[in-house]
Amino acid sequence: MDVDALQRTESTFALSNGHIGMRGTLEEGEPRGLPGTYLNGFYEEHELPYAESGYGYPEAGQTVVNVTDGKIIRLLVEDEPLDMRYGEAVAHERILDFRAGTLTRNTEWCSPTGRRVRVHTERLVSFTQRAVAAIRYEVEPLDDDIQLVVQSDLLANEPIDSDTSDPRVAAALQSPLVAEFAAAKDKHAVLVHRTRVSGLRMAAGMDHQLETPDGLRSNIHTEDDLARLTVAVDVPKGHRLRLTKFLGYGWSAKRSTPALRAQVEAALAGAVQTGWEGLLGEQRRFLDEFWQTADVELDGDPELQQAIRFALFHVLQAGARGESRAIPGKGLTGPGYDGHAFWDTETFVLPVLTYTMPGAARDALRWRHSTLDLARERAKQLGLRGAAFPWRSINGAECSAYWPAGTAAFHVCADIADATSRYVAATGDVAFDREYGTELRLETARLWRSVGHHDRRGGFRIDGVTGPDEYSAVADNNVYTNLMAQRNLWEAADACERHPEVAERFGVDAEEIAAWRRAADSMLVPYDEQLGVHQQAEDFTEHLDWDFDGTPAANYPLLLNYPYFDLYRKQVVKQADLVLAMHLRGDAFTPAEKSRNFAYYEARTVRDSSLSACTQAVLAAEVGHLQLAYDYLAEAALTDLHDVHNNVRNGLHMASLAGAWQAVVAGFGGLRDHGGELSFAPRLPAALTRLAFRMCFRGSRFSVRISGDQAHYRLLDGEPLELMHYDEQVTVDGEGVTMPVPAIDAGDPPTQPTGRAPSRRPAPSGK
Amino acid sequence: MDVDALQRTESTFALSNGHIGMRGTLEEGEPRGLPGTYLNGFYEEHELPYAESGYGYPEAGQTVVNVTDGKIIRLLVEDEPLDMRYGEAVAHERILDFRAGTLTRNTEWCSPTGRRVRVHTERLVSFTQRAVAAIRYEVEPLDDDIQLVVQSDLLANEPIDSDTSDPRVAAALQSPLVAEFAAAKDKHAVLVHRTRVSGLRMAAGMDHQLETPDGLRSNIHTEDDLARLTVAVDVPKGHRLRLTKFLGYGWSAKRSTPALRAQVEAALAGAVQTGWEGLLGEQRRFLDEFWQTADVELDGDPELQQAIRFALFHVLQAGARGESRAIPGKGLTGPGYDGHAFWDTETFVLPVLTYTMPGAARDALRWRHSTLDLARERAKQLGLRGAAFPWRSINGAECSAYWPAGTAAFHVCADIADATSRYVAATGDVAFDREYGTELRLETARLWRSVGHHDRRGGFRIDGVTGPDEYSAVADNNVYTNLMAQRNLWEAADACERHPEVAERFGVDAEEIAAWRRAADSMLVPYDEQLGVHQQAEDFTEHLDWDFDGTPAANYPLLLNYPYFDLYRKQVVKQADLVLAMHLRGDAFTPAEKSRNFAYYEARTVRDSSLSACTQAVLAAEVGHLQLAYDYLAEAALTDLHDVHNNVRNGLHMASLAGAWQAVVAGFGGLRDHGGELSFAPRLPAALTRLAFRMCFRGSRFSVRISGDQAHYRLLDGEPLELMHYDEQVTVDGEGVTMPVPAIDAGDPPTQPTGRAPSRRPAPSGK
Repeated sequence: MDVDALQRTESTFALSNGHIGMRGTLEEGEPRGLPGTYLNGFYEEHELPYAESGYGYPEAGQTVVNVTDGKIIRLLVEDEPLDMRYGEAVAHERILDFRAGTLTRNTEWCSPTGRRVRVHTERLVSFTQRAVAAIRYEVEPLDDDIQLVVQSDLLANEPIDSDTSDPRVAAALQSPLVAEFAAAKDKHAVLVHRTRVSGLRMAAGMDHQLETPDGLRSNIHTEDDLARLTVAVDVPKGHRLRLTKFLGYGWSAKRSTPALRAQVEAALAGAVQTGWEGLLGEQRRFLDEFWQTADVELDGDPELQQAIRFALFHVLQAGARGESRAIPGKGLTGPGYDGHAFWDTETFVLPVLTYTMPGAARDALRWRHSTLDLARERAKQLGLRGAAFPWRSINGAECSAYWPAGTAAFHVCADIADATSRYVAATGDVAFDREYGTELRLETARLWRSVGHHDRRGGFRIDGVTGPDEYSAVADNNVYTNLMAQRNLWEAADACERHPEVAERFGVDAEEIAAWRRAADSMLVPYDEQLGVHQQAEDFTEHLDWDFDGTPAANYPLLLNYPYFDLYRKQVVKQADLVLAMHLRGDAFTPAEKSRNFAYYEARTVRDSSLSACTQAVLAAEVGHLQLAYDYLAEAALTDLHDVHNNVRNGLHMASLAGAWQAVVAGFGGLRDHGGELSFAPRLPAALTRLAFRMCFRGSRFSVRISGDQAHYRLLDGEPLELMHYDEQVTVDGEGVTMPVPAIDAGDPPTQPTGRAPSRRPAPSGK
Repeated sequence: MDVDALQRTESTFALSNGHIGMRGTLEEGEPRGLPGTYLNGFYEEHELPYAESGYGYPEAGQTVVNVTDGKIIRLLVEDEPLDMRYGEAVAHERILDFRAGTLTRNTEWCSPTGRRVRVHTERLVSFTQRAVAAIRYEVEPLDDDIQLVVQSDLLANEPIDSDTSDPRVAAALQSPLVAEFAAAKDKHAVLVHRTRVSGLRMAAGMDHQLETPDGLRSNIHTEDDLARLTVAVDVPKGHRLRLTKFLGYGWSAKRSTPALRAQVEAALAGAVQTGWEGLLGEQRRFLDEFWQTADVELDGDPELQQAIRFALFHVLQAGARGESRAIPGKGLTGPGYDGHAFWDTETFVLPVLTYTMPGAARDALRWRHSTLDLARERAKQLGLRGAAFPWRSINGAECSAYWPAGTAAFHVCADIADATSRYVAATGDVAFDREYGTELRLETARLWRSVGHHDRRGGFRIDGVTGPDEYSAVADNNVYTNLMAQRNLWEAADACERHPEVAERFGVDAEEIAAWRRAADSMLVPYDEQLGVHQQAEDFTEHLDWDFDGTPAANYPLLLNYPYFDLYRKQVVKQADLVLAMHLRGDAFTPAEKSRNFAYYEARTVRDSSLSACTQAVLAAEVGHLQLAYDYLAEAALTDLHDVHNNVRNGLHMASLAGAWQAVVAGFGGLRDHGGELSFAPRLPAALTRLAFRMCFRGSRFSVRISGDQAHYRLLDGEPLELMHYDEQVTVDGEGVTMPVPAIDAGDPPTQPTGRAPSRRPAPSGK
């Protein structure tokens, strides 16, 4: 096995239900990359240092904590610890099963002294019992009778290597857990810890079932940071040792140690009662339901077919059971970005969940709603009205220490409002719209009304903010921001008119609503008449072009080799910004503008972010550059599987995984949902013979199948739906409807900066 | 005495020659505010922390170090330490004598047990022997015979209270000196130390002369961080104890301990040989010469008369003997700004020195020249050509940890070039022009050529930089920056053509010079046609006006109560920016533009910086608002004496002190020097009956006297001079020439932001 790749595969093989996350570390603990077990929302706090501080700079940072590790099951084979670095791995495979929701492993290992065993493990983090994970562990001697000793641990304060250069952060994360309670009896143990600074409390418990030949000796004991069940047994050839380990996790900012202990023991009791087979069964039923709503079939490219399912599976894992917690940028697959959630969630991940698992989208938005008081406080601190959501956070408080690319990126607020509107339109969830959605949108509308102002000629300006492109900052009238704010203002006005009682509760009167509409209606959108393209932000097209020819390949990503000063003042784009505006606010651009803009920004976009290829795929497809769209789809879908950005060790990129879905469904499927209306404009690249995907909308499930010059829409269950196919309205029912796909001639594809074209994805062999 | 005010008066009474600085701490060491002895260029280094780091961020900070304190002379009066907090100060005064160059003190003190003594001290930091300071210390019993014990110390690693919140900086400055050598003999001692991280080495030595009645016992000893001469003697009433303490200081980054020791002992030997009276005499002759070139007489306002001489004296102290070291923002009067030098020096301080003590201006520019290699390296790191001088530094390396208001403020480079051109024009120093000035200007011209670019229409843009106003940042085409860069480019081209051999040495060819001229000639200067005013930077006048009416007085300075985000995106100006451009590049504006611009920016400038009132005074005077100019002059001149910004404890504001001279000479005198030609446009406010000042230009000294509606120019020595008086050329010779002052009707004065008008300075009583 490739031990060096362990850190990466620990991310790839991570299991999660959105509440508990377990990296794909080998059961025996070592060799290991970066072991990690995470509980959504559980973090440690540390001071944020500034050499030159400023008003409103966040003082406290938050970092996800590696909690008590329950994955560990160590094995001694006749005194020799199973360690893949020694002896010989005769066979070894790991399988992440998207249908079963399990990670299985089959290893045949020959110890340095020549003893051979076969180890089979299977683990799951339960989608149905959110506090529960379980591991089935089997060992079979392949030679003579062998003495096996198994140690099943709960291990707190596991030593990990930290990437941070800040000694204070490193100190906060070295042994972050303070022991509060430990107890063990029979095959059952619980440890309770709390964090030193943030004062959050967590409990981890384990219980076991054993199936062994006779003669077993077992023993359990605890220390502050360790609970261990030890089992020693002689196993004859042809027999095996089978251990089932049930894990329960819980955390709370408020509950006491006895309460948390009880909570975890109750979860364990439930899991044991359900049993291993029961958990497996529930898991499969949950996933069957998911895939029936969400599956994407791509004929003609088996690798992409696998990648898109991998992507959907991980997006599901990140969002399924978050339940009023954030969906972090890395899900619960690794410690990257400190475990923070960003705008990625609302802009890239939630659209996928909205159309495939709307309850998860709702829960993620409820997390935002639960942080509204912090966001209102932050707005006030910044001299603004309404709510200013954080650029990066775990608990809802701003943790971004560099304000030009953090606090100034207010578009996150419009992104949240947009995700809210999309969810409400896609589900017709009136209760949510009233209880949560209206408040989210009216508070963000207030923010925009106070961030922007009407100029002397009446135009509404939003000055000094940062759009999605992190190679520009603190600019005036960023088109993406302005257009998203415009929609935010309109949607807030509509929501307040739909729910006058909510509007009244928050003191929104007719005058305020009129002011929102006036601001939105007169929103400025900078356009360069001479070049015939939109300006990413005011004066953008006047800036110097980046010297791409003079930039060696080794100097990417640029931010590691050039100062912000140089990046900000030039026409170089890290990630889709104006192009993202053309996706999400495609209703604000003509087709001709889209083509010209796409070509202009394509030549200036370097994709130093994982949040870019997917959007470029969507727009490339729309303007008709289908091979280019296909190339970008492949880049987005394979970002993590091929470790394109060389940082998968810190976790998977949820937004890029979700972006793969967007590239397929919004790209080749042409899905748009402006104003809550679904429309499709499907068109396939040459390499794909057929694309099929499923979605749900207002409680109805339907499928879209595209092949050649036809698209077929069919209702799977629920009420018939009205959709747009290109400019035609179609009614989708159980019979299905087939529509022609018009041809397009987009002309020559645009060019990218020197050396930054996506890999040309060849038609798969055999086609 | 007001013990609480000690920190402030320690700054006010600081003595310095530009090489050694001694705060005005009482000799007996306590009570004390913030004791400080500084050697220009001597600093400790510490890590600069970043919660989110970026390419090109400086890693090391520099902080001025309180070196071995030689001022301390402790007194025991019959076992009772002289301490102004105990007993009674029957009389106490301190006098900073601008003519003598000394700080004297007369204290009559009654001990808690009723013993009375009179203490007279006088100290100087020698302008003529730059490594030397000296203290005359006299005690006279006022009652019976009294036993006096005097302890004269050299004290290293004096404990001081640090303002910093960064533990790493605090640690660096707590006991920064590592002992290397100590020796004492007779009345003479030397201590040698070095800094822990920066590895700089310093030596301090002392020698003494004693005049006492008989029966003296004295003793000297040293420890690592202390050398002490102890003198015990019975002094009869009517007699006194007189101690003269000579101090020698030296530091080096390269010289060894024995070499430094020798250097300091040689300085001491010279001082002792000159003797106290000799040092006093040299000091007075030096100052006589200075005041003959530099004095400013203001009739009608005795407080301002004192303030302007206080200002000139401290500017002299900061610059006199810096000799190829920087002139820090606080001079050597305190630890404020970490002891860093900024653009203030070139823009505010050097013009004063250029016309009053040109050698000091030359030396300060030679310091910049000596850092050119670091500046070239920095430019390269930033992807630029030429030289990028640091925003703040002690040794020439960038120490600014917040790039939008540091690195991005490239105008410092044009400010250095401008100071260079001014010095060369004012002195005709061809050797300097060739050896130093041309290189300074060509490397900064290269910088501008690479920071800016020609747009599609040929205009030269400078995007993404920060001008003087720190409430705006990272903007396009800041008028101040563009106009100063324009002059820089022109001056560099001229210098290279004057010195083709220098141009050749640096590879400047005709093509490069032509490119500089082309850039300068097509420099963009944003102007708002609709409002008829220049834009501080592109689109500035489109931004939202700050809500001054809604800003309570307690919220100033704004940067402590509002985020940069909010300040940057609105029309609120911390300090003269466009208005400073109208002073330094007045040749680029019409009189009508100046009036309109002044009124426009006056209404938006809050003066949260000490670098503003003086420039506002200059422009107010030019456009004819003479009372307003007078108010601003008073604010600038009294900034430190009245502690307007409540931070004089950390040192005096050299730029504001120099600005007081600018307000008088460039304001009411109307001095301008565009293109190296001197012109005056004098005009007095009602409160002043007469203004007279002196200057030197191309080796000639002349005086300008303005009273009522006449101005009189007279040569004091040297060759006759050609000047402009308003639009008329005048020849100034020993006869003098009297010219009429035209009347001006400027209309109503402009308004300032709510509550931010300068204090109205009434006509002094008795007038």
